[in-house]
Amino acid sequence: MSVITFLTDFGLEDDFVGTCHGVIARIAPETRVIDVTHGIGPQAVLTGALVLRSTTPFMPVGVHLAVVDPDVGGNRRAVAVRTGDGRIFVGPDNGLLMLAADDLGIAAAHELTEQRFRLPDVSHTFHARDLFAPAAAYLATGTALDELGPALDPETLIRIDVPEPQVGRTQISATVLVVDRFGNVSTNARREHVDALGIRDGERIEIRLTLDRYYAVVAQTFADAPPGELILFEDSYGLITLAISRGDAARLTRVSAGDEIRIAQP
Amino acid sequence: MSVITFLTDFGLEDDFVGTCHGVIARIAPETRVIDVTHGIGPQAVLTGALVLRSTTPFMPVGVHLAVVDPDVGGNRRAVAVRTGDGRIFVGPDNGLLMLAADDLGIAAAHELTEQRFRLPDVSHTFHARDLFAPAAAYLATGTALDELGPALDPETLIRIDVPEPQVGRTQISATVLVVDRFGNVSTNARREHVDALGIRDGERIEIRLTLDRYYAVVAQTFADAPPGELILFEDSYGLITLAISRGDAARLTRVSAGDEIRIAQP
Amino acid sequence: MSVITFLTDFGLEDDFVGTCHGVIARIAPETRVIDVTHGIGPQAVLTGALVLRSTTPFMPVGVHLAVVDPDVGGNRRAVAVRTGDGRIFVGPDNGLLMLAADDLGIAAAHELTEQRFRLPDVSHTFHARDLFAPAAAYLATGTALDELGPALDPETLIRIDVPEPQVGRTQISATVLVVDRFGNVSTNARREHVDALGIRDGERIEIRLTLDRYYAVVAQTFADAPPGELILFEDSYGLITLAISRGDAARLTRVSAGDEIRIAQP
Repeated sequence: MSVITFLTDFGLEDDFVGTCHGVIARIAPETRVIDVTHGIGPQAVLTGALVLRSTTPFMPVGVHLAVVDPDVGGNRRAVAVRTGDGRIFVGPDNGLLMLAADDLGIAAAHELTEQRFRLPDVSHTFHARDLFAPAAAYLATGTALDELGPALDPETLIRIDVPEPQVGRTQISATVLVVDRFGNVSTNARREHVDALGIRDGERIEIRLTLDRYYAVVAQTFADAPPGELILFEDSYGLITLAISRGDAARLTRVSAGDEIRIAQP
Repeated sequence: MSVITFLTDFGLEDDFVGTCHGVIARIAPETRVIDVTHGIGPQAVLTGALVLRSTTPFMPVGVHLAVVDPDVGGNRRAVAVRTGDGRIFVGPDNGLLMLAADDLGIAAAHELTEQRFRLPDVSHTFHARDLFAPAAAYLATGTALDELGPALDPETLIRIDVPEPQVGRTQISATVLVVDRFGNVSTNARREHVDALGIRDGERIEIRLTLDRYYAVVAQTFADAPPGELILFEDSYGLITLAISRGDAARLTRVSAGDEIRIAQP
Repeated sequence: MSVITFLTDFGLEDDFVGTCHGVIARIAPETRVIDVTHGIGPQAVLTGALVLRSTTPFMPVGVHLAVVDPDVGGNRRAVAVRTGDGRIFVGPDNGLLMLAADDLGIAAAHELTEQRFRLPDVSHTFHARDLFAPAAAYLATGTALDELGPALDPETLIRIDVPEPQVGRTQISATVLVVDRFGNVSTNARREHVDALGIRDGERIEIRLTLDRYYAVVAQTFADAPPGELILFEDSYGLITLAISRGDAARLTRVSAGDEIRIAQP
């Protein structure tokens, strides 16, 4: 059985996701669709790219449909990218697919130009329904990638910059990448950056925001700190994350994606 | 493989949708369920009817279960309606099914009275679980429509009025039908109404709300306007829609479903 | 075809649920996953346990994966519990599974210690992905329960207290268990408690909150009262519930889960 995974910024309040499921089921009735998430912030291409990269290793090899597409209807290209392990990523050429695809190594890339593999009428504003979902569905049923349109030089595909933390002798300036439903605040810092400050598990660290500062304990998991206490830990995708045991760190600190957060020796 | 599509106002915070999936899986384990959306506003029968009509053409032919049911437990009838193309719509007789069904042409309608095709205990407040989902599941497994209850004269089924825009010489009075997650504001106006004002793509138009007025550019897609600018375009379901390129038009204008919006020559 | 049902407090904004679906699909590609709900309040173990108990009878017999796990990474055990009817519940040993499992009668319980049935790297904070979902998937493909780890004495499994209403001669002190998307307020009171007050369908009852009091009509369903009127009824899971016909009782009364609500003779 073939699999399509599906990631967007569409949310689930509207019919966008369900309609794409319908389009896929009409073309590829035997294909299973796994919704990775549709909760990417509206038009947040970087967040989508990060989540696609971190989740893909946990997904079956298949067609990976991803749509966060602020330039829909403009002249950005629609593409499909095959990686060395046999996965095919389908979506807009705006960087969304490329953190995941470059990690896995690109074997081929094609532009999605072939009319046969689109819906008969392509709207100007809903390419997920009219163009990307049909392409993914045809690929899942075995249509060869090179039938969908001309090959592209992978070097010409748009890449997206991931902000890197700045690491000083006594502090790190990190950027908040994602705040999750539990109020856990994931940053672009990684374990090695915190280690470079010379701080170890169980020791305290200082968290400096624009106006406030907090102390957190460097820990492995929530259970390592009493309820209500801030902890700094490596999350399950390898990102240094600020959290509160049995609480909501984002609500306390009022940070959100894109904010700067300084992690410092106390 | 048979398909049930499923549309409600249940949301996904509670177990209502999941419980109906369970009920269907017990009766029809081989049937696939496609969630169209469960984000219809609570008890918003008109919105549900509009979304069911606009999305059904993108769904496989199957059983189309839809429940937005403010009169559950009262004396509204439970019905199933077969259309000329072989689809069967299942839900309450309150107009929810009929925009879609009338578009496709009604071949037969039956009331869902037969006890065998319900759960043993039917609650007063959750007919989706106890009555509609079982009926849909039995239909998906091949139970004939006329086994579920007596035939109904399709003329007696409740219809719902869709507000029509009022079109003057220099302006249109339209009604907001849906505001989506991106803040796009869909109205009941259609392309022909805007054309009748003599305004073409790229020209400016005036948007008059109760207290405020705005200028928008008539466009085909978001990319036709600079970020932050209001555009008026035909959305992917054919509705005239107000949006902001890379922004949120509903937040700017503070309109919501049911509001009046005037589209006028500037 | 085997079935896994899946209940968590993960919400659908993040990738947690989708990632677990991917993990299951890699191990058990033929298994169907039914999402019961992922809208349990963050870390609300009691609510999760109540919803798991009330929904399980509507689910096919299968593997029932449930994760609300504030102590992830600590020393709470990971367990699987088989009930007399052949269901297997998988989740943390914190009471979440036990309202459902005790109702059905426990046939066997095992701790999930076997490395073969986990992902190769187990994080400290995402056991649903690394440990529980793999265990559920292996069980769904036919792995025997006793292969996953040593048997446990069912008596040693953690139980959770469900608050019981206090019933006086003229009033009941009940606790709000769940507020749903429609604003319906379910309490731990049951029909027998209201009957004991000598109040019958169609009669008025007094609802006393900390600061306010309201009158409600004891009814069977929304249609028994005019729009806008408060009703008290037995919901579809057998809980005494406060609601407003075509309105939102939680918004009116401003109660939420855990609040006390007194139901009294007027």
